[in-house]
Amino acid sequence: MIPPDHPRYRSLVTRELLIENVKKGIVSPEGLTAHGRGEAFDYFLGERTTAGALIAERTAAALLLAARHPVISVNGNAAALAACEIAALQKASGAIVEVNLFHRTEKRIRLIEDLLRNAGADVFSGTAERLLPLSHDRAWCRREGMFSADVIMVPLEDGDRCEALVNMGKTVIAIDLNPLSRTARRATLTIVDELTRALPNITGACRDLTEDERSELLATLDNNYLLSGAIGEMTKRLSHALD
Amino acid sequence: MIPPDHPRYRSLVTRELLIENVKKGIVSPEGLTAHGRGEAFDYFLGERTTAGALIAERTAAALLLAARHPVISVNGNAAALAACEIAALQKASGAIVEVNLFHRTEKRIRLIEDLLRNAGADVFSGTAERLLPLSHDRAWCRREGMFSADVIMVPLEDGDRCEALVNMGKTVIAIDLNPLSRTARRATLTIVDELTRALPNITGACRDLTEDERSELLATLDNNYLLSGAIGEMTKRLSHALD
Repeated sequence: MIPPDHPRYRSLVTRELLIENVKKGIVSPEGLTAHGRGEAFDYFLGERTTAGALIAERTAAALLLAARHPVISVNGNAAALAACEIAALQKASGAIVEVNLFHRTEKRIRLIEDLLRNAGADVFSGTAERLLPLSHDRAWCRREGMFSADVIMVPLEDGDRCEALVNMGKTVIAIDLNPLSRTARRATLTIVDELTRALPNITGACRDLTEDERSELLATLDNNYLLSGAIGEMTKRLSHALD
Repeated sequence: MIPPDHPRYRSLVTRELLIENVKKGIVSPEGLTAHGRGEAFDYFLGERTTAGALIAERTAAALLLAARHPVISVNGNAAALAACEIAALQKASGAIVEVNLFHRTEKRIRLIEDLLRNAGADVFSGTAERLLPLSHDRAWCRREGMFSADVIMVPLEDGDRCEALVNMGKTVIAIDLNPLSRTARRATLTIVDELTRALPNITGACRDLTEDERSELLATLDNNYLLSGAIGEMTKRLSHALD
């Protein structure tokens, strides 16, 4: 239905994919608005992985590989957009994949877990408890899953939960296209890149990082520097937009 | 449900309003994504009317008042967000209000027309024909409505239709939070501001502009200058974000 030569083809197809997944109950309507925000930030970024984002992605790989108990937290948008990429990262990093939803129902949890399993992920399920210090339903998680994690990757996270996880002493890796968001500022490491570009880069780095590179990336991690770089890219693109 | 002291209270309430209107069939799911993009751009703008946007809004009033046959084109998002503000602008400007939809069904047209009428707008309906040179359903409009318009205001427009209208020789006033969009660049005048802030300013200007101010605004209209100003505001805000 969308002509492949449309200047925004890829972006329109992704929107249709998400809307299909709203109909299936996997993506919440709020997820569509969140995706739109991401699109706008990505537009400013030039819809490409910047050099700074690639460093963040390689650092994320180093953090996951160094972790005792790494967890990838998945919501509806992340599953709809990148189930295969999540499965691949799980295999390369050895992390647990656990579903965590803001708009939580047992049915949605099951649908998303099925989608991830069909894409090849090994999903950690079991009984959830209200373990995170949050008033809303993202408080629910599994004791042996993200509650026990030392390193947790949160693609497309809300600020409250990111803050709660950091306050629990966890190392939080966020993937967030808005470098000014509360999530981006509070995370230990923020990858300012689009999810389906970011995940394969992290997976690749899990496979190809040497011991020395891993130590170097961990020793030099400076999230404010990375965020400044992302903001700088956006500023540069904006300034030259009308040239 | 949303606590009024939440840092993003207004934004969350607006999202809920749009989701309610998706359930009613007034807003399309695609409209939620579009709204999210707008939110992100507005965030960069500081969620306020800039001095440049106010000039654009006063110029829009001057264009509407000078028009022979002004039309305000309304889609689902615009009606859901700003039906009352549209009705007020219609009264102050004497413009025709006509519904035009990308995701067009007779039922949606009727729902949106009813919403606007309940808010006090005098909606121009009658029989639509496929009159605009576009392949999709935004081609449908009324011969005595927007097809005959000399000045047309298009809040939240897509680039294709904006271009078609400009190519038909019409003066197009866009309201678009993305100063880089095709709509923003192709319109005769682009207001880079959020819809519910922009419309009351245009309505106010319709009431208080003097003859001299109107001539001055029309004589000095320079859309590239206005767009550069909006981009400059966003760049400034981004650059100081981490200070």
